[in-house]
Amino acid sequence: MNKVYVSGIGQVPIRENWERSLKELAGDAALLAIEDAGLGYPQGLFVGNMMSPTANKQMHLGALLADWLGFHHKSAVTIESACGSASAAFRMGVMAIASGEMDSVLVIGAEKMTDSPSPEITSALATAADAELELDFGVSFVALNALIMRRYMHEHGWEKKDFAPFSINAHANGAHNPNARFQQAITEQTFMNAGMVCDPINLMDASPIGDGSAALFLSSKPVSNGHPTIEVVASASATDTISIQNRKDPTWLTAAEQGAKQCYAQAGIKPRDISVFEYHDAFTIMAALSLEAAGFCERGQGPRLAAEGKIAFDSEIPVATLGGLKARGHPVGATGAYQLVEVVQQLRGEAGFTQVRDPRYGMAQNIGGSGSNITTHILKRV
Amino acid sequence: MNKVYVSGIGQVPIRENWERSLKELAGDAALLAIEDAGLGYPQGLFVGNMMSPTANKQMHLGALLADWLGFHHKSAVTIESACGSASAAFRMGVMAIASGEMDSVLVIGAEKMTDSPSPEITSALATAADAELELDFGVSFVALNALIMRRYMHEHGWEKKDFAPFSINAHANGAHNPNARFQQAITEQTFMNAGMVCDPINLMDASPIGDGSAALFLSSKPVSNGHPTIEVVASASATDTISIQNRKDPTWLTAAEQGAKQCYAQAGIKPRDISVFEYHDAFTIMAALSLEAAGFCERGQGPRLAAEGKIAFDSEIPVATLGGLKARGHPVGATGAYQLVEVVQQLRGEAGFTQVRDPRYGMAQNIGGSGSNITTHILKRV
Repeated sequence: MNKVYVSGIGQVPIRENWERSLKELAGDAALLAIEDAGLGYPQGLFVGNMMSPTANKQMHLGALLADWLGFHHKSAVTIESACGSASAAFRMGVMAIASGEMDSVLVIGAEKMTDSPSPEITSALATAADAELELDFGVSFVALNALIMRRYMHEHGWEKKDFAPFSINAHANGAHNPNARFQQAITEQTFMNAGMVCDPINLMDASPIGDGSAALFLSSKPVSNGHPTIEVVASASATDTISIQNRKDPTWLTAAEQGAKQCYAQAGIKPRDISVFEYHDAFTIMAALSLEAAGFCERGQGPRLAAEGKIAFDSEIPVATLGGLKARGHPVGATGAYQLVEVVQQLRGEAGFTQVRDPRYGMAQNIGGSGSNITTHILKRV
Repeated sequence: MNKVYVSGIGQVPIRENWERSLKELAGDAALLAIEDAGLGYPQGLFVGNMMSPTANKQMHLGALLADWLGFHHKSAVTIESACGSASAAFRMGVMAIASGEMDSVLVIGAEKMTDSPSPEITSALATAADAELELDFGVSFVALNALIMRRYMHEHGWEKKDFAPFSINAHANGAHNPNARFQQAITEQTFMNAGMVCDPINLMDASPIGDGSAALFLSSKPVSNGHPTIEVVASASATDTISIQNRKDPTWLTAAEQGAKQCYAQAGIKPRDISVFEYHDAFTIMAALSLEAAGFCERGQGPRLAAEGKIAFDSEIPVATLGGLKARGHPVGATGAYQLVEVVQQLRGEAGFTQVRDPRYGMAQNIGGSGSNITTHILKRV
């Protein structure tokens, strides 16, 4: 099994970007990653995307983007795993290199959502749930997460305001990230006064959609391009029931726990060795559940970790260090690539104001559906 | 790099199957493959599908089908590469095993197209072309292939009736395949009298859509389950320009040539060593171009090979031995899996009336778009 290195990264700011097509956004991020790596064109292309068939009337992004970037006669496919698409694409890229099939791979996460009417996007997002058991009954993704959050609050005695620290931390960090969709800090009052989306989830619990693309250049050998060497030391993925009604305990992310445990074993480390954790805070409830499933606190204690300030970039377990899904934004099929790019930024020491001190291991965890398909990676500064 | 074996296969008949959902069709094929292999549940699931986001309002098939089949906590994703989706998924499965990441993998190709109104399907199929350069100008996939066919006829002096032998051969073979959508032989007269779709492509040049699913169980070790051992000895994929207007020569499938050459090199064989070739005869023009690109005849001589009867199941280079896309049917995102399953049927000696004599190597080639993304595999009876 060959080793895998992240030799280049690229990203475009997440915005309502009506001037650039999906192809252009993805191309911009890709060229930045290719230039950053300095290894020329890659041998293979793995694109993570969810909404393009519905929101952009464009499939076949593998061939489209290879063509747009100007390299032909190479392998190029799209990987879809709902909001976990980009990290699933990254995992395929890792396997392509680990297998010896390719020496270099470009992974692009790309999504363009704001050109489409909002109901169309909500409907398209809901296709990540079970069409027969969930979608047909009118339940949206916010509603599914609201059900989980309400049950979690009931079981562990937390109140609405106890989820504020996740959002406050994300926005505090995002304020220093020029690529973040929202770059303002918020207060507990902002959080509590935000408009309700689906009780108990309000606008400050929920992450914003957006247009964006991030890319990573993987190689079988480390390169001398002026950056510290970053190795992919663990990759794992796990599924759970797709509909939450079939899940024995909807307040526990089994697939996140499984993925994290497999990754710790592959890397030969423990949770306390993780310097930075880019979790999937699509909703504040997912932030709490992710911290618990990945072993950073006991069950039901995620909000306490946040309340005690231990999730800050200069504290015990830095999360959402460049804004997370909440402030950096959540262009669904691209999000996993942003998470991984940000982990690389941290491990390289290029994260700016919210730079974590002396990072060694960074973990990214990307959730597809309401916890039904979760991909986890650990990167190491060699 | 670990070896990869096809230890189990499964398929459901291609029909207008209004009684079964996509999930059920895929589950049926998957369970047949799992049972055929006899190795229990796989460690990973790779689903090839194109139309589900649009035609079935269901994404996230990886998690959905893992859940439906009853195995959780394993890797599961969807791979999309237009009509080449299933062979692209197979290739990912091959890399997952070759890398040592998994010991067993299930590849499912699944597509359900006939529940949706025909214009919706035509529109969804067109998303495999370039939205900005082709789709927005109203050109459908049949039209793109008609342009290629007309140019090919002009350049090489072939007439409409010269394409009849491809269709006649496919239907003659399909007549013996209980899983084929159409099981009647046709004559040259049937071919010539068929209704025009987009000149010069008529109904007998074009393959029919359908509902279906086929599955393959891959393993890192051969198994003793009563079947001959089938090894995946070559896997390659290549892209070309997505829009045919940008292609220097639209009458030559460069990506098919590249893929075939790479596969011959990997397998250490020449075209004459191939016992059976499952090509992508979505249209008769693609049949001709595939034979040429894969090295079975000179440029422009595909129709001659067919006219001389050399593509029959008991002749030089058997193609579409179980009906091909033309008669077996073309449930787009599933087709690559049917091709590979049929190659395995042939290599095992389980192909029935159209069984090829003493086959050793079988090749399957699956086209995404109008030749823009082509995946090729060679399987060997060990």
